[in-house]
Amino acid sequence: MQHIYASIITIGDELLIGQVIDTNSAFIAQELNKIGVLVKHRVAVGDVWDDIWQSLDQESKQADIILITGGLGPTADDITKPLLCKYFDGEMKVDEDTLAHVTHIFEHILKRPMIDRNAKQAEVPNTCTVLKNEKGTAPGMMFKKDNVLFFAMPGVPHEMKWITTNHVLPIIQKEFITPTIIHKTLLTAGIGESFLAELIKNEEENLPTHIKLAYLPNYGMVRLRLTAIGFDAVTLNQEIIKHFEILKEKVNPYLVADEDIALPVAIGNLLKARGATLATAESCTGGNIAHVITAVAGSSAYFTGSIVSYDNRIKTELLGVPKSILETVGAVSEETVKIMAANVLKLMNTQYAIAVSGIMGPSGATEEKPIGMVWIAVANAETVMAKRFDCRFDRERNIQLTTVHALNFLRMLIVDNH
Amino acid sequence: MQHIYASIITIGDELLIGQVIDTNSAFIAQELNKIGVLVKHRVAVGDVWDDIWQSLDQESKQADIILITGGLGPTADDITKPLLCKYFDGEMKVDEDTLAHVTHIFEHILKRPMIDRNAKQAEVPNTCTVLKNEKGTAPGMMFKKDNVLFFAMPGVPHEMKWITTNHVLPIIQKEFITPTIIHKTLLTAGIGESFLAELIKNEEENLPTHIKLAYLPNYGMVRLRLTAIGFDAVTLNQEIIKHFEILKEKVNPYLVADEDIALPVAIGNLLKARGATLATAESCTGGNIAHVITAVAGSSAYFTGSIVSYDNRIKTELLGVPKSILETVGAVSEETVKIMAANVLKLMNTQYAIAVSGIMGPSGATEEKPIGMVWIAVANAETVMAKRFDCRFDRERNIQLTTVHALNFLRMLIVDNH
Repeated sequence: MQHIYASIITIGDELLIGQVIDTNSAFIAQELNKIGVLVKHRVAVGDVWDDIWQSLDQESKQADIILITGGLGPTADDITKPLLCKYFDGEMKVDEDTLAHVTHIFEHILKRPMIDRNAKQAEVPNTCTVLKNEKGTAPGMMFKKDNVLFFAMPGVPHEMKWITTNHVLPIIQKEFITPTIIHKTLLTAGIGESFLAELIKNEEENLPTHIKLAYLPNYGMVRLRLTAIGFDAVTLNQEIIKHFEILKEKVNPYLVADEDIALPVAIGNLLKARGATLATAESCTGGNIAHVITAVAGSSAYFTGSIVSYDNRIKTELLGVPKSILETVGAVSEETVKIMAANVLKLMNTQYAIAVSGIMGPSGATEEKPIGMVWIAVANAETVMAKRFDCRFDRERNIQLTTVHALNFLRMLIVDNH
Repeated sequence: MQHIYASIITIGDELLIGQVIDTNSAFIAQELNKIGVLVKHRVAVGDVWDDIWQSLDQESKQADIILITGGLGPTADDITKPLLCKYFDGEMKVDEDTLAHVTHIFEHILKRPMIDRNAKQAEVPNTCTVLKNEKGTAPGMMFKKDNVLFFAMPGVPHEMKWITTNHVLPIIQKEFITPTIIHKTLLTAGIGESFLAELIKNEEENLPTHIKLAYLPNYGMVRLRLTAIGFDAVTLNQEIIKHFEILKEKVNPYLVADEDIALPVAIGNLLKARGATLATAESCTGGNIAHVITAVAGSSAYFTGSIVSYDNRIKTELLGVPKSILETVGAVSEETVKIMAANVLKLMNTQYAIAVSGIMGPSGATEEKPIGMVWIAVANAETVMAKRFDCRFDRERNIQLTTVHALNFLRMLIVDNH
C-alpha cells in the first residue's frame, strides 16, 4: 500500500534542556492519523541554524509532509523564519493581511501600543503561502519543494492547534489521496499488561497483518488499541469490528469502556445515564479528584462539589469525623474515610460520594502507616464501602494513581448498582 | 569548546499516533544538562524494525551518547530488545541477577504467579552491561560501539527515572570529561514576551556569546533563562551571576521568583515565611487550585482546605452566598467571589483565602457573560480584593490560566502585606 508519511520537527532549546514538555507533537500526530497520514518520525532540535537546516534536509528525504512548530516568536532566539526564508530561496516581505490582523489584535484585544518587534511578525518569505493565525500574531507558512509539503507553525499550543485544524489538514486532504486508518480502543482496569497479554494471546495471534494491537499501560489501567489500515473502508471497518468484539468479550471482567475515553468521562457517562450526582471529600488527593472530574465539559450536570479537608480540623468541623477517631485510629483509616464519604453525601445531598485519605510522601509516614498507604471509600444511600491500597511512587504519581483507583472504585459501585 | 552531545530516541507507536505525551525526554534532557551534556537531537520512532535501526545509525553519527527508551516490555509489540541484540552482534542469554530480581518481585511484592513472559524479561543480549531496574521487571542495558555509548531503558517513567539517576548519569560522568553548564532563571508575571524583550533589549545585546538568554512563556507568565557554558566553573559562575543580577534589577516590577520554581512553590515559600495558612473556595477551577498547591511536598504546613462549590446550592449552603445575590448579579460576579473568599477564610480560620467563579466553556455562556469570563477574589483579615479577567482558550487551558492568575493575585496580596 502507498502510505503518506509525515515528519514532525519541533524547534526550541527549551525542548532539549527539558524545560517544557512537548504536547504539540501528540496533537499533530493524532490529527494526521485521523486523516490517514502516518507520522514516521518526530524530531526535536534546538534554536541552532545548522541543526534546523539539517533536519529539514533529512526529514524531507523520507516524508511527504513536514510539520514544523516553534521558533516563530518575536524574540532574538526565534530563528526559524529567517532560516525558512533562506531554505526556500525567498525574500522577506510584509504580508498586508497579517499586518492588518496584528494591528487589530493590539488595538482592539490587547489594547496596548504595537512595537516594531510585533509589526515584524507580519513579515514572511515571499516563497510561502501564508496560513492565517486567528489565535495569535505569528502567521503559519506553507512551502513546497520537490513534492514535499512543509508547514511551519508557532509553538504556542492553541495557536498551533487552530492553524492545524483550519489550514493544514484541509490542504493535506486536497493534495493527497489518503488511506483509511481505523483505531478502536478498549479501556481496562485491574489487570496488569502481562496478564492481559496472556489472556488474549490467541486472539492476538489471529489478527491479520494489517490490523495491529498495542498495549498502552497508564496509572493502573491498560488501554488495548487495535489499528487497521487500508483503502477499502467498508471491509476494513467490518474486519476491525469483528476482532474488536472478540477482544471485548475476552477482557469483559476488566472492561471500563469500549471507546477511547478517559476514566472521568466514563464515570460522567454512567452518572448522566442514571441522572445521579457526585460529591467528593478529599484529603491526600488535595482536590485532584474534583479537578479531573470537572475538567470534563458538561460535568456540572453531575458534579456537585468537594470538601478538601487537608487539615484534620476540617475533617472534624466540616465532615463530622469525631476527634476521638482521629486520635485513635487516625486520619488514614477505614473508619475516617467511611465517615467522610457518608457525611459528604449527606452534606451535599448527592447520590454518590468518594472519600480518600492517605500518605502521598515524601514525608508524613509513620511505622504503621508507610508512604503510599491510602484508604478510599465510596458511598451511596444504601452502602459505604472502603478499601485500602498502597502506591509506591513519588508524590505526583501517588496522587494520580489514587485518583484513578478512587474513580474506578466508584465505577464498580455504580455498575453493580444499576 | 569540546562539547559532549547526546541524542534521545523514544520508541513506541503510541508516540507517533499521539496517544501518549512524551515526558521521558524532558526528564532525561534536564538531567543530562545538569552534568554538562548537551542534547542535540530528540527523535521518536514507532515499533518498526527498520525505523529503529536507521535511527540508531543516524544518531550515532552525531552524538557521543544515545539514550533509548521504550519497547522493552513483555508484549509482542516490544521489539527493541531483540533489535538491540542484533544491532550489537549479541545473543540472548538469561541474566541471573535479573531473573532473581523478577522472581522476587512476583513472589514478594506482586504476590502473583510468574509466567514465562515475565521470566523472559530477564533475558538480555550477551554484548550488553545490565543496568539493574529496582523499580520494575525490565532491566536497562548499556552497549558501546565505535566510542558511542548506548543506554536502553524501559519507557515506564518512574523506572526510566530510577535507571537514569542510579546508572546512566554516574557512568557518563565516569566516561567523559563534562563541561560546566549553569542555568539561572527569573520567573515573571504580568508582562508579555515582546514587552519583556523590549525592556531588556540592551542587557540582552550585552551578553557574551557563551551566555544565552531564552524566553519561556507559559500560561500568562514568562520565564527568562540564562545559560552559561564553559570549563572554568568559577569564572562562569561569576559571569552569569553578574548578568543575572542586572536582568533581575530590570524586570523587578514583574518578578515572581529569582529561581526556577513553579508559582505554587513560590506561594508556599511566602506563606511559610509568614507562618500563614490558606484556604480556597473554587467554582470554575473545580479543585485545581487546591490540587496545584497540594502537589507541592510539605504543603500541609500552610494549606488548610478547599470548598469546591460547583453547584450553586453549595455556594449558598456552605459558603453563605445569599440566594438573592445568585439570582440578581449571578454566580460569576464580583459580589459572589468576594463573599466566597471572605467566608471560606472565616470557615477554615486561615490568614489568606482565594475564591474563583467563571465560565470555562465550551457551554455555559450568556450574552453578558461570555466563555472565559472569570472573577477572582483574594482575602485576608483586613482586605477582600476582586478582579475580573477574561481567558479566551479551551476549557483545559482556561482552567490552568485561571489557576495561575488566582495564585498570582494572592501573591500580590501577600507581598504588599508583609
